[in-house]
Amino acid sequence: MSMTPRSDHSPTDALAAVSEGLEIPAHKVPVPTTVSPEMQTIIGAPRRPASTLRPRTIEEWKSIVDASAVTAISALPGLCKRLRVKFETTRLDGVRAYSVTPEDIAPENRNRLLIHVHGGCYVLSPGEAGLPEAILMAGFGRFKVLSVDYRMPPEAYFPAALDDVVTAWKAASTIEDPRRMAVFGTSAGGALTLALILRAKQEGLALPACIAPGTPMSDVTKTGDTFYANELLDNVLVSRDGICDAATRFYANGNDLGDPLLSPVFGDLSGFPPAILTSGTRDLLLSNTVRVHRKLRQSGVEAVLHVYEGQSHAQYLANDAAPETREAFQEIAYFFDRHLER
Amino acid sequence: MSMTPRSDHSPTDALAAVSEGLEIPAHKVPVPTTVSPEMQTIIGAPRRPASTLRPRTIEEWKSIVDASAVTAISALPGLCKRLRVKFETTRLDGVRAYSVTPEDIAPENRNRLLIHVHGGCYVLSPGEAGLPEAILMAGFGRFKVLSVDYRMPPEAYFPAALDDVVTAWKAASTIEDPRRMAVFGTSAGGALTLALILRAKQEGLALPACIAPGTPMSDVTKTGDTFYANELLDNVLVSRDGICDAATRFYANGNDLGDPLLSPVFGDLSGFPPAILTSGTRDLLLSNTVRVHRKLRQSGVEAVLHVYEGQSHAQYLANDAAPETREAFQEIAYFFDRHLER
Repeated sequence: MSMTPRSDHSPTDALAAVSEGLEIPAHKVPVPTTVSPEMQTIIGAPRRPASTLRPRTIEEWKSIVDASAVTAISALPGLCKRLRVKFETTRLDGVRAYSVTPEDIAPENRNRLLIHVHGGCYVLSPGEAGLPEAILMAGFGRFKVLSVDYRMPPEAYFPAALDDVVTAWKAASTIEDPRRMAVFGTSAGGALTLALILRAKQEGLALPACIAPGTPMSDVTKTGDTFYANELLDNVLVSRDGICDAATRFYANGNDLGDPLLSPVFGDLSGFPPAILTSGTRDLLLSNTVRVHRKLRQSGVEAVLHVYEGQSHAQYLANDAAPETREAFQEIAYFFDRHLER
Repeated sequence: MSMTPRSDHSPTDALAAVSEGLEIPAHKVPVPTTVSPEMQTIIGAPRRPASTLRPRTIEEWKSIVDASAVTAISALPGLCKRLRVKFETTRLDGVRAYSVTPEDIAPENRNRLLIHVHGGCYVLSPGEAGLPEAILMAGFGRFKVLSVDYRMPPEAYFPAALDDVVTAWKAASTIEDPRRMAVFGTSAGGALTLALILRAKQEGLALPACIAPGTPMSDVTKTGDTFYANELLDNVLVSRDGICDAATRFYANGNDLGDPLLSPVFGDLSGFPPAILTSGTRDLLLSNTVRVHRKLRQSGVEAVLHVYEGQSHAQYLANDAAPETREAFQEIAYFFDRHLER
């Protein structure tokens, strides 16, 4: 399409206007009745208790990360059983990873391979705790998946996670033809997916046939309307000044948060592979998502957007029994099927 | 795609959950810096003064409709000049309409024809006041457009507006091949576009090649999350209990607001032509929009969604000089170009 390209507007574009704004009085937002009962339970849950923590020491971080990982890992056997998926550890040119395989790979997917980049604000979801999304994709989409267990603080800092994803991508793209490969991930995993493409372009690597960045942390400078509009409404991230921001700064380790490798919405998105983006109407990162969608379109890239009713950040991953979860992964699988060679 | 179809959840699905919800404290939402300066002005404008009125008499309605129409009509000469578009009155099997023609029809659009259905909550934007969107589409997309000036209260009540749109569609589809035709409209015009397809399916009429319902009033029962989440944040519609609701009830004239011909999200959307949907992150009808998107996808229909950063209801129509306006119409034109035969 022949759209007029325009730069993404930086925070300094209109300082005059920033002083204005709308006063919103206190009010109550009910649980929507327009979603499944399972999703109503997820949306109706209290704000995540840890969401507003700002850990200050490595010990504090470790305690939060470990507690959250224990919960995630304890759910894996049931998830794997219900979705008939198995996983095992592997290495991709030295980078830790998991091979995640459905019992029943779809015939059209036999020679296809997906690369998963987990989320968790660059600090959470180490090891097996990063696998739920890979299992959902393998199970609902009946694809083989390699999930990258990239290094995180305090083991290593920016750009270590991205370096690992790039290394894993290079290795994986020698296993399978990149035209039969897609990369996907949510939140920090969505940002890393976008940053991987920025790096792959820079380094002249082969690109995947398509990507699926879900509610990507595409702007960690906290610029974007829904950082304000959906504050305290998103019961997952809750606040732009919460634990996810603290974790990102922990990982960034003093580097500029506006660096496109940390905030890929500021990167050059031209030449990107086709992309499917996912978000929810309550998502604190809805603006992060639609801004990437718009910038991809402005850059002439095929990009589609799916926004789910009432969902906060990444809630399409929360419960494999919710019909909206199946729906989100089937949309992504459908998109992959249209773009991956067989 | 092979998604599991599921019914749209009705308001009675989970009454238990309705009593819960999130308390949002008073807060300020600044004007986003992530949109163009022109769009910042639109987003930064005060809430529309008339938005919370609930007129009770025909005289009160007439005064509001006339005042708003005078403003809209006074802007037409400048708009037509800038976009190099002309219009003249016509009739489609007796239904009042306008022929809206760009000076410079794109070569690929010579044999294509668009049908425009204006918005205005079924009461506002009579006559030429309904033309701005048709002019934007004709100008930015370089298409010929026929804009239907359907009957509204107090001249006639539900289903008169839809009857006129159906009559106009039948007449227009004898002028041009429906495979070279699309139907588009915003707000009530988006709902009428969807209701037209429901009626055309019922009556066995030819369908247009594609449709573009913009932020459709697809559920006027006020069900949907952003009716609550974006209340007072959307500076156009402002409230689910505002003038647009009053106007819709005036038009509905006692008929069930959940009738799919008034709330098309409750209709059977299978067999619909490909659709492009447009909304904004602050839109009171963002849920109305994404719910239609989801239901179309669940029904196996090709449907794409574009959500613009920070925009309230239908603000992609507000200023032809805003780059986001051009962008929205170029997206729709691009979609039409992919789906209309030449």
